[in-house]
Amino acid sequence: MQSIKANDYSIYFNQEAYEMLNSWISNYNYSKLFILVDETTNEFCLPKLLPLLEVDIPIEIIEIEAGEEMKNISTCVEIWSILADLGADRKSAILNLGGGVITDLGGFVASTFKRGIDFINIPTTLLGMVDAAIGGKNGVDLGTLKNQIGVINAPKLVVIDTDYLETLPQNQMKSGLAEMLKHGLIYDKKYWNQFKDLQDLNFDDLDQLIHRSVEIKNEIVCQDPTENGIRKALNFGHTLGHAIESHFLETEKPLLHGEAIAIGMILESYISKEKKLITEEEYIEIKSNLLAVFGKHNFTSNDIEAILNLLIHDKKNEYGTVQFALIQKIGTYIINQSADNQMIAEAFEDYIS
Amino acid sequence: MQSIKANDYSIYFNQEAYEMLNSWISNYNYSKLFILVDETTNEFCLPKLLPLLEVDIPIEIIEIEAGEEMKNISTCVEIWSILADLGADRKSAILNLGGGVITDLGGFVASTFKRGIDFINIPTTLLGMVDAAIGGKNGVDLGTLKNQIGVINAPKLVVIDTDYLETLPQNQMKSGLAEMLKHGLIYDKKYWNQFKDLQDLNFDDLDQLIHRSVEIKNEIVCQDPTENGIRKALNFGHTLGHAIESHFLETEKPLLHGEAIAIGMILESYISKEKKLITEEEYIEIKSNLLAVFGKHNFTSNDIEAILNLLIHDKKNEYGTVQFALIQKIGTYIINQSADNQMIAEAFEDYIS
Repeated sequence: MQSIKANDYSIYFNQEAYEMLNSWISNYNYSKLFILVDETTNEFCLPKLLPLLEVDIPIEIIEIEAGEEMKNISTCVEIWSILADLGADRKSAILNLGGGVITDLGGFVASTFKRGIDFINIPTTLLGMVDAAIGGKNGVDLGTLKNQIGVINAPKLVVIDTDYLETLPQNQMKSGLAEMLKHGLIYDKKYWNQFKDLQDLNFDDLDQLIHRSVEIKNEIVCQDPTENGIRKALNFGHTLGHAIESHFLETEKPLLHGEAIAIGMILESYISKEKKLITEEEYIEIKSNLLAVFGKHNFTSNDIEAILNLLIHDKKNEYGTVQFALIQKIGTYIINQSADNQMIAEAFEDYIS
Repeated sequence: MQSIKANDYSIYFNQEAYEMLNSWISNYNYSKLFILVDETTNEFCLPKLLPLLEVDIPIEIIEIEAGEEMKNISTCVEIWSILADLGADRKSAILNLGGGVITDLGGFVASTFKRGIDFINIPTTLLGMVDAAIGGKNGVDLGTLKNQIGVINAPKLVVIDTDYLETLPQNQMKSGLAEMLKHGLIYDKKYWNQFKDLQDLNFDDLDQLIHRSVEIKNEIVCQDPTENGIRKALNFGHTLGHAIESHFLETEKPLLHGEAIAIGMILESYISKEKKLITEEEYIEIKSNLLAVFGKHNFTSNDIEAILNLLIHDKKNEYGTVQFALIQKIGTYIINQSADNQMIAEAFEDYIS
């Protein structure tokens, strides 16, 4: 499949990607390569990657526990210390092999170790491939506040190999699907329609669908890497989705990122409808399609109150007001939209009704 | 005094600086201004700054304890949390009022909070004015490893007001002096000579001397912000100086940064002499001038061994070899020079003899 060029790096697909990876590592003359994995990718993905790596520099594996709760500064301190102990220098590079936690965290660790060393992303989840691993945003959570600490700094190369998805659990697949649906809703109605008719995600379709999602995200990011304008469109579903995710993170039944974002997209589509940006029919189409894939989540009135409180901490808010990226017809975004608490509460009511 | 233009920002001096500061803050339409101070600058510098700030946005003061041992990730976590609690958003800015610890730490906190908010530096120590607050490097220590974690990201503005030095203790003045002498040694023989005849630092001379030091550092940084080439010249005295500083950091008698760098410059001048880059006479001139200002420090053979071990962790080393920035005649630098342990040990022997 055609590689995709970002501003400072390229995204390569499947078999070709490993050739590019090997030649990049050889050409760049790194002193040492550190591969960051979690327990899961160490078991299921590293055995696939290692035989394909044709490099003659020392390789060290750094493993962390799996899970969103590892995406914090303590884990960074551990990895920074391991890097220092293992003699990592400014010419070392980190290869992040994993889902969004690994690429977000590993990208931040690399961007700040000795004021920045190179890193390469190999996403192993659908969410990582179509979202987290591309676009240059990295970072960690601060308590329950998601992605509060980080920088914008691009990887040197991204390798997307859909073979890694073969061992991915179905709910993790859904998590990535939410972002793909978002790309359709904000940018490409035809792409959104492809999913409507899709009974099941089979692997041939999936390769093409992933490629288009990467293309859409990359097109948006390249126009606005630091999120002063159009990149905010990617936050559709995320202003409320992040608050929902944060709220449930510390409960007994945390939501996956994509599940929270799917709810956020329904709620923010409701707001789009209330603001007359989309029709009632479009709203119903979006809501029913998303509910069909993700099911309905229960919210108590206490949940909703806590989520509204979390909103004021959300990173997309400037000057203390809550700003949304919404959709204006399916396939078109509109940024910097406000909505008062009353309208947000109504969106929740409509969701749970 | 003439302002100095860096690549992405400007450095302003004395009274004019506050006009520029006030108009920057007004023009940029920040939502909130956070002033980071330590106990000392809160007492001695903030009362001077506040009446000069003519801004109509909310101001919050964040105070940390004073001292190099505060320059770590735990302090960053505290400040990030305070920022989040006080409702800092992406349009907030941080004003760092203090010495190198405050500007290094505050710059890093700002560069990573919500993936980067603006910051302004107002150095209050001589070392801060001629070195730490300019050039865009920021970061914190990792255990005893100095500046291991950080990014390169420029402030929006630097205000240099030498009035803040009136309350600065003499040993802190010496700490800045070491970097000024370094600027002469690596870049400007005439500037180095000015210090030789200087009996005492009086404040009229000092303004001019500081201005020239800022000019030299800025000239070097602008040519190579990310330290791939010429910027390494600024590491003269620092490869050994940092290791010496790290080693004594956890003892009962820690050295000030400038004291450690002064020793590093003598040792690295010895290496320059051994490599026939400077003459015996130049070495003696450098050594006697530096010893006259900084006195002689005692090293046991255990100290020296520990320092040599720390060297392999120093951030200037690539591919596992120790690389030095040395001088080639007084007033000219030469980078990427190696020296074996034997020669380094001899440098220490000559120093303590």
